[in-house]
Amino acid sequence: MRQVVMTKPREIVVEDRADPKIVEPTDAIIRLAATCICGSDLWPYRGVQDVHHQVMGHEYVGVVEEVGREVTTIKVGDFVVGSFWASDNTCEICQAGYQSHCVHRTVMGLIGTQSELARVPLADGTLVATPSQPDNDLIPSLLAASDVLGTGWFAAVAANAGPGKTVAVVGDGAVGLLGILAAKQLGAERIIAFSRHAARQKLAREFGATDIIEERGDEGVAKVYALTDGLGAHSVIEAVGTQEAMMQAIRSARSGGHVGFVGVSHGVNIPGELLFGTGIHLHGGPAPVRQYLPELINLIWDRKIDPGKVFDLTLPLEQAAEGYRAMDERRAIKVLLTV
Amino acid sequence: MRQVVMTKPREIVVEDRADPKIVEPTDAIIRLAATCICGSDLWPYRGVQDVHHQVMGHEYVGVVEEVGREVTTIKVGDFVVGSFWASDNTCEICQAGYQSHCVHRTVMGLIGTQSELARVPLADGTLVATPSQPDNDLIPSLLAASDVLGTGWFAAVAANAGPGKTVAVVGDGAVGLLGILAAKQLGAERIIAFSRHAARQKLAREFGATDIIEERGDEGVAKVYALTDGLGAHSVIEAVGTQEAMMQAIRSARSGGHVGFVGVSHGVNIPGELLFGTGIHLHGGPAPVRQYLPELINLIWDRKIDPGKVFDLTLPLEQAAEGYRAMDERRAIKVLLTV
Repeated sequence: MRQVVMTKPREIVVEDRADPKIVEPTDAIIRLAATCICGSDLWPYRGVQDVHHQVMGHEYVGVVEEVGREVTTIKVGDFVVGSFWASDNTCEICQAGYQSHCVHRTVMGLIGTQSELARVPLADGTLVATPSQPDNDLIPSLLAASDVLGTGWFAAVAANAGPGKTVAVVGDGAVGLLGILAAKQLGAERIIAFSRHAARQKLAREFGATDIIEERGDEGVAKVYALTDGLGAHSVIEAVGTQEAMMQAIRSARSGGHVGFVGVSHGVNIPGELLFGTGIHLHGGPAPVRQYLPELINLIWDRKIDPGKVFDLTLPLEQAAEGYRAMDERRAIKVLLTV
Repeated sequence: MRQVVMTKPREIVVEDRADPKIVEPTDAIIRLAATCICGSDLWPYRGVQDVHHQVMGHEYVGVVEEVGREVTTIKVGDFVVGSFWASDNTCEICQAGYQSHCVHRTVMGLIGTQSELARVPLADGTLVATPSQPDNDLIPSLLAASDVLGTGWFAAVAANAGPGKTVAVVGDGAVGLLGILAAKQLGAERIIAFSRHAARQKLAREFGATDIIEERGDEGVAKVYALTDGLGAHSVIEAVGTQEAMMQAIRSARSGGHVGFVGVSHGVNIPGELLFGTGIHLHGGPAPVRQYLPELINLIWDRKIDPGKVFDLTLPLEQAAEGYRAMDERRAIKVLLTV
């Protein structure tokens, strides 16, 4: 099969690799219908995170080709969506809704789903089948559910977005944009997007943003306060992972408010005095996407949401390198790779 | 009137001061029935926090002597308990349950309640009257409600303590001990106290602790994991305010668990990577004691809880200096000053 590999920062190749095989009796092998490039793939691409000839990709939808002998709920031929964490969905941590911290978890990035085929561990716990084979136009949205939609949804839940709430969103990448969609679905009254990018502002408004703030730092915080009777936002989503973004998020929240953070932290340090003084709730980390998949698949299936809009560039798998360049240069919000 | 003043670190005097007067029409003047020394008073006492001839104390119970012309719910002669933050209890932040962040808040420590009389701003919002004049033996518990009980209660709520939960408590001062009492009242199944102090361990058990851990750091964390099927505690209370205590708390919590922190942060820095990786909920700060006062007063009035047990030394106001020494040297958990 063909598979994307990052040989070193800024070098993406597509290689011939052996087809994956069932290793554990709980595995499934899927044939990818589509895969994509994640904002978090840019950390190693930009050399912020070590990388050395590494398979890439952790988002996936596709058709089950083979299942291990202990797999009982997923069948060959099913069209499935899975989270970027494989999880048993039965342990105490999973049952509490934190499948991304499952005691038996495996991160799909180590397996690599920017490929024609992929082995999915713990198939019964990890994969959710769609009601039947999806129409082609639903595939981008189902793929989004695998990570960026599920992550934005978790961020909105962690930020306690809901009816009557003002939600501010730091980060205008795919996750931030889908955090807006999630906040809207959860009933938020006002949604403020931090963005300086015309195309992203437009998509933010399509997904439900009511206000756009182009300023950052003190000026950005002041704008949030001006929009919220001087109190700050009830709920803030942090979808970047830098110190600047985390401070923007914490300082934009009102006392007693909630910050949900899903940007993969890189060098972030949160001063205890600030957290103590503001009295906010802080919750985040890798999203337990599996928890939300049944609900998200239903919303997509019924065409109530269209998260696939975040894919503004589609390329064949063989042109993955161009996809990485486009995302790195912010020419594309998110790149779908056809398989 | 007589009032306690910290002239500089480690120097406590009792001075003659002018009696307080009504300043705002929403003020009340109370005659203290009892007051006390707080663990947080030790920060300036030990020179960690600047102090220069400062009035002290923010915990108080007493009888209303005079009210301003706009006070409507509190009457002269009422026996009242108030929080260490004066709050209007009507603004949007108060209504959301965060009276300690009220838009009109005043911290009682600036007024000083280690004194015979005290002016309480925003009396209607701040003070809660007891059903009638309390029996003398209830006064220590009512005084505890003013801060340490209310703070321990908030910590337990912030840590999501409840039925079926294992709660770990970092800090065996009065707040940590009353966090145990609160967790017990909230229905926690198992309560683990970190303590090396025989007298405090005993009180921890009286308040509901089921397990004691004397170890700290990695060994302490390992003990929590050993008691929780290798998962960590559902809920952790941090009631110290140091880096070491915060790390102990975060690392003792299971993925997706909750840490409620109420120790006043001093030099604490929380690594974003740790918070991201563990997926815990973090919430804390100055406790909105006012939110809990009606419920806590009822529990005390009905003799269902006895938080006054944390006072293991009682001295007259004139001997405040000895009270500070006893707490600094950990000879006393908490010192009540009779007025």
